[in-house]
Amino acid sequence: MSDVHFDIASLHAAYRGGVGAGDVIAAIYARIEAADDPGIFIHLTARADLLAAVEALGPFDPVAKPLWGIPFAVKDNIDVAGMPTTAACAEYTYWPDKDATVVARLKAAGALVVGKTNLDQFATGLVGVRTPWPIPRNAIDAELVPGGSSSGSAVATARGIVSFALGTDTAGSGRIPAGLNNIVGLKPTVGALSTGGVVPACRTLDCVSVFALTVDDAYAVFCIAAARDAADPYSRDIAVRPLAARPPVLSVGIPAKADRKFFGDAAMQAGFEASLAMLSRLGCRLVEIPFGDFYATANLLYEGAWVAERYAAIRDFMEANEAAMHPVTSKIIGGARKLSAADAFRGLYALQAYRAKLAPLIASIDLFCVPTAPTHYTTATVLADPVETNSRLGTYTNFVNLLDMCGIAVPTGTRDDGLPMSVTLLAAAGLDGLVASVARDLHAASGLTLGATGWRQPSAQPVGVSAEDDTIELVVVGAHLSGMPLNGQLKQAGARFCRAMRTASSYKLYQLAGQATPKPGLVRVENGGTAIEVEVWRLPAEAFGRFVAAIPPPLGIGNIELDDGSSAKGFLAESVGLLGASDISSFGGWRRFLSDRVPV
Amino acid sequence: MSDVHFDIASLHAAYRGGVGAGDVIAAIYARIEAADDPGIFIHLTARADLLAAVEALGPFDPVAKPLWGIPFAVKDNIDVAGMPTTAACAEYTYWPDKDATVVARLKAAGALVVGKTNLDQFATGLVGVRTPWPIPRNAIDAELVPGGSSSGSAVATARGIVSFALGTDTAGSGRIPAGLNNIVGLKPTVGALSTGGVVPACRTLDCVSVFALTVDDAYAVFCIAAARDAADPYSRDIAVRPLAARPPVLSVGIPAKADRKFFGDAAMQAGFEASLAMLSRLGCRLVEIPFGDFYATANLLYEGAWVAERYAAIRDFMEANEAAMHPVTSKIIGGARKLSAADAFRGLYALQAYRAKLAPLIASIDLFCVPTAPTHYTTATVLADPVETNSRLGTYTNFVNLLDMCGIAVPTGTRDDGLPMSVTLLAAAGLDGLVASVARDLHAASGLTLGATGWRQPSAQPVGVSAEDDTIELVVVGAHLSGMPLNGQLKQAGARFCRAMRTASSYKLYQLAGQATPKPGLVRVENGGTAIEVEVWRLPAEAFGRFVAAIPPPLGIGNIELDDGSSAKGFLAESVGLLGASDISSFGGWRRFLSDRVPV
Repeated sequence: MSDVHFDIASLHAAYRGGVGAGDVIAAIYARIEAADDPGIFIHLTARADLLAAVEALGPFDPVAKPLWGIPFAVKDNIDVAGMPTTAACAEYTYWPDKDATVVARLKAAGALVVGKTNLDQFATGLVGVRTPWPIPRNAIDAELVPGGSSSGSAVATARGIVSFALGTDTAGSGRIPAGLNNIVGLKPTVGALSTGGVVPACRTLDCVSVFALTVDDAYAVFCIAAARDAADPYSRDIAVRPLAARPPVLSVGIPAKADRKFFGDAAMQAGFEASLAMLSRLGCRLVEIPFGDFYATANLLYEGAWVAERYAAIRDFMEANEAAMHPVTSKIIGGARKLSAADAFRGLYALQAYRAKLAPLIASIDLFCVPTAPTHYTTATVLADPVETNSRLGTYTNFVNLLDMCGIAVPTGTRDDGLPMSVTLLAAAGLDGLVASVARDLHAASGLTLGATGWRQPSAQPVGVSAEDDTIELVVVGAHLSGMPLNGQLKQAGARFCRAMRTASSYKLYQLAGQATPKPGLVRVENGGTAIEVEVWRLPAEAFGRFVAAIPPPLGIGNIELDDGSSAKGFLAESVGLLGASDISSFGGWRRFLSDRVPV
Repeated sequence: MSDVHFDIASLHAAYRGGVGAGDVIAAIYARIEAADDPGIFIHLTARADLLAAVEALGPFDPVAKPLWGIPFAVKDNIDVAGMPTTAACAEYTYWPDKDATVVARLKAAGALVVGKTNLDQFATGLVGVRTPWPIPRNAIDAELVPGGSSSGSAVATARGIVSFALGTDTAGSGRIPAGLNNIVGLKPTVGALSTGGVVPACRTLDCVSVFALTVDDAYAVFCIAAARDAADPYSRDIAVRPLAARPPVLSVGIPAKADRKFFGDAAMQAGFEASLAMLSRLGCRLVEIPFGDFYATANLLYEGAWVAERYAAIRDFMEANEAAMHPVTSKIIGGARKLSAADAFRGLYALQAYRAKLAPLIASIDLFCVPTAPTHYTTATVLADPVETNSRLGTYTNFVNLLDMCGIAVPTGTRDDGLPMSVTLLAAAGLDGLVASVARDLHAASGLTLGATGWRQPSAQPVGVSAEDDTIELVVVGAHLSGMPLNGQLKQAGARFCRAMRTASSYKLYQLAGQATPKPGLVRVENGGTAIEVEVWRLPAEAFGRFVAAIPPPLGIGNIELDDGSSAKGFLAESVGLLGASDISSFGGWRRFLSDRVPV
């Protein structure tokens, strides 16, 4: 059973097909052994504990527990009750007595914590080598850095040890390691996932992030993990919607050619251009954007104020234990000691100025596409020049949280030299679903196998009709049906046809009396109802509002139960308006009534 | 002509009646002379320049220029082109070559700058005595401090020298001087009025504020001045709506009795209680709120991070010219030198925690009412103890901008000892119009004369029920009525109250069966109907659409005939939903039913 694929759809299919949890757990440990990489995990769940956890879930039930039996790893700056939290600094270790909010939500959905993963100490770094534990090996090419700071989580995912893993992302820690290991890295809108129970890096910017083998999996985990949380004052209400089809036409901002930085890496440059061509083939309209202000925003992150957040987070520990820290980490964070409160505010003002300046541009474009990393580095190169290489890796990531954008790093191909190619799609806060809808199509178009596993992408799951749903469904029953006299009103209002169906069997249809043009009235009844043919259309909220406002009596808008058990807003008649009306329910619908009735 | 009243309605009536601008300008200078207070203005416009400015406006045209010929004063930390900006520190003086954004907007509307006014140096203080210029005399009682930091602007307004004046407000500088001088002080939502061209105090909190003799005038100036401005990265799009009638029932949060602080000032305590009684008589429902978290938020302002913003704003100047500063001011701002960047972030985190904690409370209440100042101080008392007295004056003001609330200080009466009584109404960001609608009624109920002028309040202008319509009327009948449990949904959707009225006599009202919380259902009937009390609200079309989409069965939206012969969309119940419901039509409305029904 060690060949069972761990993307969620495949693993749930395996469970459904009779594969036992014990076999899956055996596969996890076999893969850990096969990886032979002591740098991935800082703490590993005991096999017996994992078995006990899956037994506690009860029988396989992916409806009640959408992550039933799904193994995941947790970056070791995120609390898991009963396991140490180290932030990759042994002397910092504490034993939390409760799960981080996000971990608790995932466990409640049936997911299983396999262990706590290595990271750049205190989540400071994008390289994955700033750790007193062994450096995790890049899953694709052992010479390369794994990327960081969420190094172990990315490698564990890429090796198929887990279905997904939690990282954190302040400056790119949830995207760079995804890009370097051929997996998906979802960096949510700041505040969408609670940071309750997470060791802070920069509290105003920190995100919990999700690594997965596919976009569907990353987005599914995001949806389950996201929630406003009183334990995190920076958590926000972010609309979380099921993954839907991407809108067919999108504008995608890309760095202007002159502003692209690859630090001499021609393969990455070519790979990025190939990725843009894929976006074009998907129907996206590429728009070159001057990137100077984005880079200037990025520079704020390590130049001033925000280093002080890292220091504020561990000040007491650091002042007592500086020698215990990784030398690169302590040097970077220690730089904050000389910064004054006035410096901090000047940094905040500079950021606010860029936010205000870039807001109209960001709002004018549906999403952005940048390289995830500008180049690949070997571990040897990074160890020889730990700060400059790290800084370069953040070229396309550092500005993102500062500008309150969300993003997904997604594999798009293999470079000419065989190394992984990845781009990151970015958008304004709250558009996590839009970004995911494009990322999934881009990943599918790449035809890549998953991480370092060699597994083929699972066949795409069907998604809902529309992503941008700010629209409202409207059930029409009479003159607004397709081809009927008032159908044009719907189309003029921007309505789109969704489906033809029938109501639940609890309605009566009448032909209203005294109307200039024939009109039906639908009424829900207690007894003797029947199912009536209707159509479901969708309108933008504003158009829906105007449409409702224009409906003349005795018609109005109420709740209509449909024969698939769902319900939607639709036309109902006031009972008082039925005086003199004829019950035409036996026709089963207005269209049939018009065609079959015996002319009077 | 020196007796012409300067509230905008009276002054425009005078212009319309043939009073010349020259006469008005003569009155301005006559009043300045009569005031005999060299502390009010730091710079005065030359009479010839004022005459030239009014001549440049062309003929009286209050439609094209709604502030045609209206004189105003500008706090001397706000730029007026061609006049020095001192921030009450001579050595700091610079000569701006353009107007602050807000000044430019008011000039474009026809208003005339009379001069630049004195302030607590660098807008640091609530007392009005921290200035190297003469201390402005309180307009009501010369023994008292004028209040600050916008001291001169408040006194100029109270004395009728100008129709209105601009102040700034970071910690209460736009409210305290209003409260101490019997005038109105409108402190907008942070970011509603641009701070472009304003010497910063705390850039993240600074507001330009408006002093006026009446609420109508303050709100009219607010509407003209408010606009998003690229010159101010902290400016925001805040919906600015014409002043409308206040909703008849509002919940008003007040400090719990045990949490009120008057520092032994029994007259202020009695005055506050009398003000609350006025609010009750207006139909407001008073809700006592524990105020500890508000006070704790207020304490953040001068304890840590935000003092560093004041220092950041003038750091270069201060390091070179500290001896030139007012000794109290330099001592307070200099305290920031010892604060680190990590301290600044810790302050920001503490604030965010209070914001997150208080947000649900603030959202649950329509508005808040607090004393503007807890007590009055004489100038002698303040000079003897400059820091503690200042701190006490900010008891009810310091937390407001930190919590992103808007507010209006409004006179409510005269205390037993003859000193002015004022309360401040507060609400969440963006509700400036709601606060104004209540403040105007409170001011009218006080029957007070204006400032120190002895002028009677002008007769109330009719307020628009609503004009700017892209909005849709909604008739509510039950839990959405003012003060009822679901009324907040309407307000959150941006709905505004229009009027209370009754339906035509053709409806029946039922209490629906099987509802968790009691709900009515309105049904139009052929015979035996009655008129039911309802309220008409207005919503933007999009919000209306969403609102309709969220209504659960058996309720829906249909046409409702009103007793004035009009009709509008409103709540109706499906007849099938009335099974088991009780006919409560005889109560005449849901509110009456809830209060008069015999408990079962």
